[in-house]
Amino acid sequence: MNKERIREEASYTARGQPNIAFVKYWGKRDERLILPYNSSVSMTLDPSINTTTSVMFSEKFKEDTLYINRDRQDISGGEAKERFALINTLRELAHTDAKALIVSENNFPTASGLASSASGIATLAYAAAEALGLELSEKELSIIARQGSGSACRSILGGIVVWHRGEKPDGSDSFAEQVVNEGYWEELRDVVAIVSTDKKRVSSRAGMKQTVATSLLYRIRPQIAEEYAGVAIDAVKNKDFGRLAETIMRDSSNMHAVMLDTYPPIVYLNDVSVRVMYAIYELNKAEGRNVAAYTFDAGANAHIITLEKDAERVEEALDGIEGISRILKLHQGGGPVLLGSEKSLISNEILDSLYQARS
Amino acid sequence: MNKERIREEASYTARGQPNIAFVKYWGKRDERLILPYNSSVSMTLDPSINTTTSVMFSEKFKEDTLYINRDRQDISGGEAKERFALINTLRELAHTDAKALIVSENNFPTASGLASSASGIATLAYAAAEALGLELSEKELSIIARQGSGSACRSILGGIVVWHRGEKPDGSDSFAEQVVNEGYWEELRDVVAIVSTDKKRVSSRAGMKQTVATSLLYRIRPQIAEEYAGVAIDAVKNKDFGRLAETIMRDSSNMHAVMLDTYPPIVYLNDVSVRVMYAIYELNKAEGRNVAAYTFDAGANAHIITLEKDAERVEEALDGIEGISRILKLHQGGGPVLLGSEKSLISNEILDSLYQARS
Repeated sequence: MNKERIREEASYTARGQPNIAFVKYWGKRDERLILPYNSSVSMTLDPSINTTTSVMFSEKFKEDTLYINRDRQDISGGEAKERFALINTLRELAHTDAKALIVSENNFPTASGLASSASGIATLAYAAAEALGLELSEKELSIIARQGSGSACRSILGGIVVWHRGEKPDGSDSFAEQVVNEGYWEELRDVVAIVSTDKKRVSSRAGMKQTVATSLLYRIRPQIAEEYAGVAIDAVKNKDFGRLAETIMRDSSNMHAVMLDTYPPIVYLNDVSVRVMYAIYELNKAEGRNVAAYTFDAGANAHIITLEKDAERVEEALDGIEGISRILKLHQGGGPVLLGSEKSLISNEILDSLYQARS
Repeated sequence: MNKERIREEASYTARGQPNIAFVKYWGKRDERLILPYNSSVSMTLDPSINTTTSVMFSEKFKEDTLYINRDRQDISGGEAKERFALINTLRELAHTDAKALIVSENNFPTASGLASSASGIATLAYAAAEALGLELSEKELSIIARQGSGSACRSILGGIVVWHRGEKPDGSDSFAEQVVNEGYWEELRDVVAIVSTDKKRVSSRAGMKQTVATSLLYRIRPQIAEEYAGVAIDAVKNKDFGRLAETIMRDSSNMHAVMLDTYPPIVYLNDVSVRVMYAIYELNKAEGRNVAAYTFDAGANAHIITLEKDAERVEEALDGIEGISRILKLHQGGGPVLLGSEKSLISNEILDSLYQARS
């Protein structure tokens, strides 16, 4: 019995956010290191949807333990184990064998297509590095987050971010980098139309593997996306919204096209998503220029990228589309931040239960 | 006044059927001659869904006149005029300037995705050639039908048909040919799940032009489809249903993928189509082999290709899918046939009205 000792171990708590990809990541050239076939570009979102993660390392813990939204997770196998590998990488860097207790909460539904894995893994990598006293650069941290979930590496930074595909087999040049910070083009918004909170039919990890293995159209997706990434970065730097919007819409459809071309097909879009696509198309046509761009991740939720001055018109265009349960207007956000210890999610109850299990 | 004389002109009436493509046609390399980027393969359907067309040529008619399902059509411009060009080709072959009266009826809704243009144009070409006393080979007739509507050329023949893409700029080697007749693999069925009879949002003609112009994935669609066409023909000849089914499903998704990759996107599939895709996937998985293949033309209706012995299982799998209004089980059919004059759709009322217009 040494309860007091365990409670004295420090917990570190961080908060981070998802990102919405302007140019998508779909397909790995290396499954273990999570190296993508193409570079991708995203906008980190503001904290109105976020993940909070508390991490504590201790030699006293018998095993690694993970709670998400108060439910203890099985991390002994499958995708959970693969995602958890980044903790081993961090332990190696810190020369420790201490086991980790991780408690994470999303303020939005997990696996609803709101990129909870990206914010969760980015925040975990950030908090765990702090807990181990590692002083890592954003580049190093993004490489570690990447090994938990590809798109998570982009949530290590704020504003508009590029994840360079890289070329080296060891993945050392496949990292996330800020294109511009969240103040550079402050007017950018993501109007999110929540369409469904059902769990996804196919996980992104399994789905993209299937696409790479079976889609004949995927053969040229990487070069197309690489081109789109270059155009998107250029459009962001020049604040050319019309060009950015076209690239965002083209790339979203391009990714969902190779998903459909997968055998058996992967379909995340539904009738509501299609109605949103046509509504935005009609809005842009009526305005005579691109005032908005739809984009869909691996889920039916619609993300409408627009500028503050046009956000109201976008919300009006979405208004009355059957099947939309809620609309959120999100700004750009920064990378993960450390919260005060009073925000820790590691309760005495959880520590006690771990202790009981051990005794 | 010479009413009697006009009524003496002979009318010719033919009946023909749509075809369902196993490997799809989507994209022209020549818009005027309707030359495709890839070969396609189809099954001509039995007459339970059909088009009946009556044609009469007369020097007495002031202009060409077309009725579809009792409605007089405007053929002075647009797609209707382009489709009508095949009548000019036939007139040139027959060395006549006589104008045509054409009355056509589908026993299924026009533009519902049941390929009414294919059966309509094939039947028109066939009846018009008869009315002009032209003795054309099936190859010649398919080339003429092709100029009205690409996929119509395949409905000139029965059974399993290939439309060779051809290479010559004049289109003389882009024709339909029977792979095997309707008796060779008699057990093949098309179980059609009627999903919607709404008019299509985008016509195939306009849609495929847009795809060729804007989809980056389309760059490799022709070579993929050409490969699929070869596999499908081989599978038909060898009665290898498993291989045929995989090719049919892959090609359908491949076409709808390049449609989605079009800018702005073209989406014909809806939630019901997706439910059908998953139901067939589950059926095949449960059986441990491909017993059925879904395929979708430019519409939401599902065509499930299967064999007679498995058709009941397919109907059971479709049973209870919300959004399916009706299920048809179709066999293979032959090419267009000439009907007796008692089946003519050209009534005295129509002739009278044309005559009145002229006087």
